[in-house]
Amino acid sequence: MSALGEFDLIAAYFTRPVQRAVLGVGDDCALLAPGHGMQMAISSDMLVEGRHFLSTVAPDRLGHKALAVNLSDLAACGARPVAFTLALSMPRVDEAFLAGFSRGLLALADAHGCELVGGDTTQGPLNICITVFGEVPAGQALLRSGARAGDHLYVSGTVGDARLALEAFRGTAALSGDTFERVRLAMEQPQPRVTLGLALRGVASSAIDISDGLLGDLRHVLRRSGVAAVIDADALPRSADLSAQPVALRYECGLAGGDDYELLFTAPASHAARVAQASRETGVPVTRIGRIEQGAGVRVVDHTGAEVPMTFGAFDHFKS
Amino acid sequence: MSALGEFDLIAAYFTRPVQRAVLGVGDDCALLAPGHGMQMAISSDMLVEGRHFLSTVAPDRLGHKALAVNLSDLAACGARPVAFTLALSMPRVDEAFLAGFSRGLLALADAHGCELVGGDTTQGPLNICITVFGEVPAGQALLRSGARAGDHLYVSGTVGDARLALEAFRGTAALSGDTFERVRLAMEQPQPRVTLGLALRGVASSAIDISDGLLGDLRHVLRRSGVAAVIDADALPRSADLSAQPVALRYECGLAGGDDYELLFTAPASHAARVAQASRETGVPVTRIGRIEQGAGVRVVDHTGAEVPMTFGAFDHFKS
Repeated sequence: MSALGEFDLIAAYFTRPVQRAVLGVGDDCALLAPGHGMQMAISSDMLVEGRHFLSTVAPDRLGHKALAVNLSDLAACGARPVAFTLALSMPRVDEAFLAGFSRGLLALADAHGCELVGGDTTQGPLNICITVFGEVPAGQALLRSGARAGDHLYVSGTVGDARLALEAFRGTAALSGDTFERVRLAMEQPQPRVTLGLALRGVASSAIDISDGLLGDLRHVLRRSGVAAVIDADALPRSADLSAQPVALRYECGLAGGDDYELLFTAPASHAARVAQASRETGVPVTRIGRIEQGAGVRVVDHTGAEVPMTFGAFDHFKS
Repeated sequence: MSALGEFDLIAAYFTRPVQRAVLGVGDDCALLAPGHGMQMAISSDMLVEGRHFLSTVAPDRLGHKALAVNLSDLAACGARPVAFTLALSMPRVDEAFLAGFSRGLLALADAHGCELVGGDTTQGPLNICITVFGEVPAGQALLRSGARAGDHLYVSGTVGDARLALEAFRGTAALSGDTFERVRLAMEQPQPRVTLGLALRGVASSAIDISDGLLGDLRHVLRRSGVAAVIDADALPRSADLSAQPVALRYECGLAGGDDYELLFTAPASHAARVAQASRETGVPVTRIGRIEQGAGVRVVDHTGAEVPMTFGAFDHFKS
């Protein structure tokens, strides 16, 4: 952990008094004291320009998103955010960028009580690597491996807006100015479902966050759980903006959109009321979109029960 | 934590069965269960080509070094390595590179019982970000803030060879082939002093690892401890290769070299025998190079006691 020369300046934007950590920024290591009986949940994500964000993104939104995608991993585990490290490579010290980036980053960190405890800054192509730490009582983490035949399949919030924004940037979807700004916000400033993840401990049987598209991420759950799923594509929760799009685009954005950072989870049918309660208590909408079956793979149907042909591949961020 | 498309291939090089972790690679988060009464020491370092390593480095040495610089931070805290995450950005999937890189990385990880528990792979300019986790009994971490007037100042191993190698790469030092290979190894494959760090718990009053040059890193300790130091530049432990160089180069490499990854630490004079014992038990040479005084700043003298003029700045890796 070192910051050198003019890059010492960068540290000034990210150094604040220690909150819950035993030791924060400025020594060889940070020190965390996990609570008794707690396990540490750890996730690390690296964001690269042109792949995970566009050069047009406002710095404060980028700071928000860099932490949000990591908090979303904690949410999918049902872990409470505790702390994070930030490693940042930048071509040059750009104070306007740093001011905005740190503002967006630290605002989200504060909202979740997640403390910046260390990291690294260096000169190089723009690259943001955050590693986040959360606490979860031993044995209570939500895993990808717990889905069972008969479980209901749910998703939080709405899906597909981030992909719709990307299609607008690509010029393959024409949106009004208001619609564009709304879906762009979904892409650039996702809200990690941390409170919902915590409320689903002991309720959900499996969970994952949707970063690479609903179908692709669902397949991770199915493989690790050894089960199959059937989804009603018309049951997918969509914004009014996405609902106004042609059916093919609607399906593609919703099913293979990517960058949603909603929770996709399963729960036994007997937990339906508890799922609804978790949704109410956290204010996060939850929609039942299908069920888990014996077997392998995903079958997608429409509201008439007819199979929807899957002509699109998995979302590969900005390169698909 | 996601790996997409052809980058799934990368994950194959880094995925192994879980060892000590509760949950390893392949879920939203990894899960670690810290021992009772243990604190988690965390450090994160980002390595960028041309700044932290040269394009000529062999992949296995780079894999080694990427983890070594992080383990060195744990060593400086007196923490026992437990696990790490790896985030890797690469321009393209290069299997020869990945095979060598993962071999060097995992060999060092195995030597220290440090388990790869997760991470991220993406396409982009070459960038390696490792976050490492260690355990230390609560209250026993070695900090930068504990040096006191009267303490002895020590350094492990030898210092300056890595910088000598860099000067040879730069063409400002002419070395024989054998010498070049030896100092190049010091630069490219540093040995983190983990066992010494553990043995110094309860013995050293402060510690730091030398990544940015002995003087620069010493100043971090002095500032945080509120003390001054005097160093005998001729007491600095040097390899025979460095000792054969002109005096100005010897001083510069030893005092401001960077990339040494040795431990620089202080201990009360009354602990001198325990320091010697820690050195013997771990087989890591330790040399007393100065003392801590009241005041601020560093004074460097030679073996006659005459002040050595400091005409060189802090080491700024490959850009100085």
